[in-house]
Amino acid sequence: MTEPFDDRKARASGWFRELRDRIVAAFEDLEDSQSEGPFAAAPAGRFEVRETKRASDDGSDAGGGLMSVMRGGRVFEKVGVNVSTVHGTLGAAAQKAMAARGVPGMDDDPTFWASGISLVAHMQNPHTPAVHMNTRMFWTPHAWWFGGGADLNPCIEYAEDTADFHAQMKAACDAHGADYYDRFKAWADEYFFVPHRGRARGVGGIFYDDLNTGAWDADFAFTRSVGEAFLPAFVPVTERRRATPWTPDDKETQLIHRGLYAEYNLVYDRGTKFGLATGHDANAVLMSLPPEAKWP
Amino acid sequence: MTEPFDDRKARASGWFRELRDRIVAAFEDLEDSQSEGPFAAAPAGRFEVRETKRASDDGSDAGGGLMSVMRGGRVFEKVGVNVSTVHGTLGAAAQKAMAARGVPGMDDDPTFWASGISLVAHMQNPHTPAVHMNTRMFWTPHAWWFGGGADLNPCIEYAEDTADFHAQMKAACDAHGADYYDRFKAWADEYFFVPHRGRARGVGGIFYDDLNTGAWDADFAFTRSVGEAFLPAFVPVTERRRATPWTPDDKETQLIHRGLYAEYNLVYDRGTKFGLATGHDANAVLMSLPPEAKWP
Repeated sequence: MTEPFDDRKARASGWFRELRDRIVAAFEDLEDSQSEGPFAAAPAGRFEVRETKRASDDGSDAGGGLMSVMRGGRVFEKVGVNVSTVHGTLGAAAQKAMAARGVPGMDDDPTFWASGISLVAHMQNPHTPAVHMNTRMFWTPHAWWFGGGADLNPCIEYAEDTADFHAQMKAACDAHGADYYDRFKAWADEYFFVPHRGRARGVGGIFYDDLNTGAWDADFAFTRSVGEAFLPAFVPVTERRRATPWTPDDKETQLIHRGLYAEYNLVYDRGTKFGLATGHDANAVLMSLPPEAKWP
Repeated sequence: MTEPFDDRKARASGWFRELRDRIVAAFEDLEDSQSEGPFAAAPAGRFEVRETKRASDDGSDAGGGLMSVMRGGRVFEKVGVNVSTVHGTLGAAAQKAMAARGVPGMDDDPTFWASGISLVAHMQNPHTPAVHMNTRMFWTPHAWWFGGGADLNPCIEYAEDTADFHAQMKAACDAHGADYYDRFKAWADEYFFVPHRGRARGVGGIFYDDLNTGAWDADFAFTRSVGEAFLPAFVPVTERRRATPWTPDDKETQLIHRGLYAEYNLVYDRGTKFGLATGHDANAVLMSLPPEAKWP
């Protein structure tokens, strides 16, 4: 490939970083504006920010990222927003998994570069849904693609919240491909299904991977739209539910639902598997795990 | 093979069931005898027992088991003791995994039979170690083998407990093979290592798999010794620690250690993977998960 990928990599990773900055600011605003209801009298939560490093087998720099975690806030019980830009050589397992998915050239050159943003929020209020968002660009000498999506994970479901969240995701999709929402909603329904429990992890959203239409600019623009849809999809739902009083039973329901979330992430999640297999900082990879979970 | 495997299968599965009965009785005795210290005034815990069924793809009977769980006792916060005897056809992934481990004949006949006992105990007292024990017999038309072991998982380590537990496991090994303890202790150290955390899950014990010396009776006798060593290895340690007062910090340490335990079981444990992949009752497979865990 002769395309100017250095420039594209920089544009993508720069944009993931900007989105991170906007989300971190918006989440701290949510903390500041929680002026009634549970925890309103507690200090507003703030993110702790830490750089993460990844070393290659020979000890040389293999990229890293920025891990931002807010704990014990008024609205967020634990939320992580990670960005990372990593490069190096894929291990045998990751190489095989990608070849099996049809990524070209994986057999003869396992060099890769990947950049993305990943967010998981576990909320104080059981009426406010947990949420996950992730968008990423992946590059190898023979291929590049985007992936990502966002999905809502309420333990107490409100049809209105589900509808509003999906409407934002649909709008993000519709601007880029007439069939994108239907395809990527169906993909999320399949991807976030927990086979051993025979149920979905949450109420879905969209998920896509291996997106390469041949037009890098268009695919990057779509990925930006997904990332930009996240705050309008999630913040109003949070504002609507965050002051609702909850019972100990509601909290118990939430902790059990978080057990399901942890099961999914540790057994099936592609990003978690990739992160652990490629030796990224385990605390950053596993910041998606809930602050507390129950398997009664 | 022309050996009388029906008889051997019946002897093995019958013995796993007897061991289960003895352990269940001993654990209820521990509950009854908790007459001082934390929770001594609460009702003594009792196991709830439920039969589990497994159906093959065509809906026909594929075996099942007995799941026994005690929750919220004086000594045990949650403990599961499962026995199961299952048979059928291995899925492609399990078949491949076994072929890769060197099990003969996996490529042309995926028929299998397996029976075993599996136990995980999460304790009320952070000074009392969590514990895992599992022994099993596996049979295919071309092979049979035993596997199992037991390992201790304290969140607050006491060298005395570790030494006593290992001494029982060593005695069980020494009666059957001069090198068994060294080999199977080393195997446990390797098997229960959590690569992404760069640490062991606990303080080890023994682990073995694919054990077939050619002498079924000898290998079954060894497996019985391991199972029989479990109560003498674990009960005295529990009796020693169960009345020790704990602080909120001790409890927090325990909940975080349980997070590590859950990570290990969901990401790496062979039995968990096998159980989920072969469609056994997820509640039975995942009874190993802690009643409560934290990832702060």
